[in-house]
Amino acid sequence: MITLYHHPLCAHSRFVRLLLGEYGIEPQLIEENTFERRHDFLVLDPAGQTPLMIEDPDVVAPGAGAIAEYLDETRGLALGRHRLLPDDPLGRVEVRRLMDWFGQKFFREVTDWLVTEKVYKRHMPRERGGGAPDMELVRAARANIRTHLRYIGYLAGARKWLAGDQLSHADLAAAAQLSCVDFLGDVPWEEYETAKHWYARVKSRPSFRPLLADRMPGLTPAPVYADLDF
Amino acid sequence: MITLYHHPLCAHSRFVRLLLGEYGIEPQLIEENTFERRHDFLVLDPAGQTPLMIEDPDVVAPGAGAIAEYLDETRGLALGRHRLLPDDPLGRVEVRRLMDWFGQKFFREVTDWLVTEKVYKRHMPRERGGGAPDMELVRAARANIRTHLRYIGYLAGARKWLAGDQLSHADLAAAAQLSCVDFLGDVPWEEYETAKHWYARVKSRPSFRPLLADRMPGLTPAPVYADLDF
Repeated sequence: MITLYHHPLCAHSRFVRLLLGEYGIEPQLIEENTFERRHDFLVLDPAGQTPLMIEDPDVVAPGAGAIAEYLDETRGLALGRHRLLPDDPLGRVEVRRLMDWFGQKFFREVTDWLVTEKVYKRHMPRERGGGAPDMELVRAARANIRTHLRYIGYLAGARKWLAGDQLSHADLAAAAQLSCVDFLGDVPWEEYETAKHWYARVKSRPSFRPLLADRMPGLTPAPVYADLDF
Repeated sequence: MITLYHHPLCAHSRFVRLLLGEYGIEPQLIEENTFERRHDFLVLDPAGQTPLMIEDPDVVAPGAGAIAEYLDETRGLALGRHRLLPDDPLGRVEVRRLMDWFGQKFFREVTDWLVTEKVYKRHMPRERGGGAPDMELVRAARANIRTHLRYIGYLAGARKWLAGDQLSHADLAAAAQLSCVDFLGDVPWEEYETAKHWYARVKSRPSFRPLLADRMPGLTPAPVYADLDF
């Protein structure tokens, strides 16, 4: 039994949900608002961040990177030629490079600003940073995403998938970030055809369906969010 | 032949230098000021960050995490029972959790502010963010480090090394961050005895010597920096 503490708009949690979907695992999902710093959650992981995955009886794996490596180590070989991390060290360097690119750089330059300013700040008490969105950060994120869409287009134009011939952690990490931004309607797809075609392929995978069904109280996703022919 | 693009006060680069030292590898070091965004460096890695490791003929590995995994995959078994990443998936989760703790959380809350404000901003042109240090950030970092020293004390008090019975990536990642802060004289060692004893053990390792010899023009390390009996 696998339990995942997540938040619907936490891109790192979405990455793990996609991963679990690819492994055919349906986790028990528990929604966690990390800004509440809930005691029982901090006992599980003092860093207090989502995602946190628990596999009975005693595996407590915090963080998207550690979870992805753990899943590959315990179940990767069973996927055969569809393994999500290549067998050769050089291929793994490339997948991990792009994991960092999307999970850290894209998150820091795009997703974090958009989700924090447009969503989290609405729900956070004022003394913890809640309030109206800082539109300067929103605009910066909307400008920054263009560089990333160009980069995705470059990679997807030169390779079958972002890191090579096979779907890998890199595609899922990138798609997880983009899906959050897409929920908010901030991806200028029409200007980046190659990136759009790559995203349509990832979005059509069965592992993506639960994400497309996500709804949050008081928040309507952008019209194209769940549309496979966006 | 291994080449490492690094900066003397880049904590992530220091982690890789410690790693290479533990593997008995002496890299060719090339100092890179990433804020210059040098064209030839960006060609090697579009993210433009240190560390970047090159192993002839064609392995280009950017980022401390990917480099650490690559070294373990290609040379870990040769270290035998001194392997720096445990063999079991559960042990690896714990090492990677602490890698993220120090490489990301500690870096963000402590090292990045201290090094950027006290060192990098002196060398950066004003239009790229250079100038006088923001003392509010320096004070915040000096307050934050106390939580981390307590946490290191808690871990080192309960285990032989931070992640368990063996020296691992976790110890080297933590020591690399601390060594930058220690260079600047901002670690209140006298108040955190258990953390201090753990650091003294890591600092005494041969892999640490090249770091203790680091000097930067115009910057004198704190008096205890290179002292093994600090």
